[in-house]
Amino acid sequence: MEKQILDGRLVADSVKNSLKERVENLIKKGITPCLATILVGDDPSSETYVNMKGKACEKLGMKSIKIHLSKETSTEELLETIQKLNEDDTVHGILLQHPVPSQIDERKAFDAIDIRKDVDGVTSFGYGQTALGFGKFPSCTPAAIMKILDYYEIPIEGKHAVVIGRSPILGKPVSALLLNENATVTTCHSRTTNLAEIVKLADIVVAAVGKPNFIQGDWIKPGAVVLDAGYNKGNIGDVDYEACLVNSSAITPVPGGVGPVTISMLLKHTVDAAEESLKAN
Amino acid sequence: MEKQILDGRLVADSVKNSLKERVENLIKKGITPCLATILVGDDPSSETYVNMKGKACEKLGMKSIKIHLSKETSTEELLETIQKLNEDDTVHGILLQHPVPSQIDERKAFDAIDIRKDVDGVTSFGYGQTALGFGKFPSCTPAAIMKILDYYEIPIEGKHAVVIGRSPILGKPVSALLLNENATVTTCHSRTTNLAEIVKLADIVVAAVGKPNFIQGDWIKPGAVVLDAGYNKGNIGDVDYEACLVNSSAITPVPGGVGPVTISMLLKHTVDAAEESLKAN
Repeated sequence: MEKQILDGRLVADSVKNSLKERVENLIKKGITPCLATILVGDDPSSETYVNMKGKACEKLGMKSIKIHLSKETSTEELLETIQKLNEDDTVHGILLQHPVPSQIDERKAFDAIDIRKDVDGVTSFGYGQTALGFGKFPSCTPAAIMKILDYYEIPIEGKHAVVIGRSPILGKPVSALLLNENATVTTCHSRTTNLAEIVKLADIVVAAVGKPNFIQGDWIKPGAVVLDAGYNKGNIGDVDYEACLVNSSAITPVPGGVGPVTISMLLKHTVDAAEESLKAN
Repeated sequence: MEKQILDGRLVADSVKNSLKERVENLIKKGITPCLATILVGDDPSSETYVNMKGKACEKLGMKSIKIHLSKETSTEELLETIQKLNEDDTVHGILLQHPVPSQIDERKAFDAIDIRKDVDGVTSFGYGQTALGFGKFPSCTPAAIMKILDYYEIPIEGKHAVVIGRSPILGKPVSALLLNENATVTTCHSRTTNLAEIVKLADIVVAAVGKPNFIQGDWIKPGAVVLDAGYNKGNIGDVDYEACLVNSSAITPVPGGVGPVTISMLLKHTVDAAEESLKAN
């Protein structure tokens, strides 16, 4: 069977190229699209992610603001920080790096982000709009998965998509987006009793479970498309790549698959938000 | 196989009985739980529904306000009406009867309802909260389906639930609620290519498609539980009842199944909202 390796770097480059002119036009009009990232605590991989996002902004001529709060930060202090960024007209997108320390009410913090600046797609309001089909900023990894399918012209309508995982920023929104594109969608999770059998039905498999090499090769129906949204320690995906490659018709690698596209979607959402702010003024 | 007919009237009575004391306590404190219904236009079946809801309120000692707007009402006029009800402290729940005339932006009208008064579960904000697991007022028919499963002690965790339909107030939220109760959930719809095969996998079937007698008897796996959320003209469900009865272990009839429980959930949500308003003051 012919295989297609779904190269996320190509997709990300195409997204970023499409943003260049938009960023330039905004700058001409006196607006530099700006992403504010908030990091609470000293988790080294979170720091790496935040730095990557900041650099990606700058490379495109956008601005990034990094706010680093101590690991003792209270929910109230974090809410104040978010409120200030909500009110700051020069900030177009706000990203609160997940996870936050355990004393913080993460949901409350996410939901404090102004929906117009929720470029990372974490508010429950934004989730509702996305699931009902008119959200502006779906979570970035689900948006990246849809972008990859679109870029490689993989049909979705009428296909059976099986999503493994149901987190608020990954499994749930990607299920919703696939459903809105007319896939029949099954959402599986840790309590699913017959996972292998269900995955075997899938035309499109989305792994969003957070367990390294979890999806097995003999679960994949011949010809299925496999998208790996996992990012486990050591840059290992949720999919046993070599094994799943055998039956799949198309598959994303890790690294170089969903990850780079996720960051490009964050940039796109921030540019979208900056353009919207211009319209609003 | 032993059959269980899931009698919604018993479930509705149990819900309404549990509300009586709560309504009396609120009235003692000077608050009569009040549902405002808005009907736009002269659709006779919509009028019947609105009247039924009003009567159900009064029977329980609650108040109901009926607002009847002409079929020429504009979106702006409807939004003004909703805004007044949002600001009226004596109103605890607002229900905009669906469908509204075509000149009205229904989504805009739904989303104008204050989330604290969205007892019918129609706002996208409320949908997001429900899907993410902490919504106060899921849509009433999905809430009714969950209540029936709970009342008859039908296990959900680890079961495969297949929902046919994906509307914002039925298929989508019932899929979300079943997922949050740890079912593996497949959402099907008009573009699903192999519907019969998928329904045959289901331990729990929810029909929310709006087509009379659509679900066929030979689609039902022996022992499956069948819930019919359909309400088509002539009081006919979405499920071919006699045919589906054969293989099912439990099934809701139409009428007398999901319908009566839906109204009782609306009453419960209105009492919940009245209690919350008391706490807030």
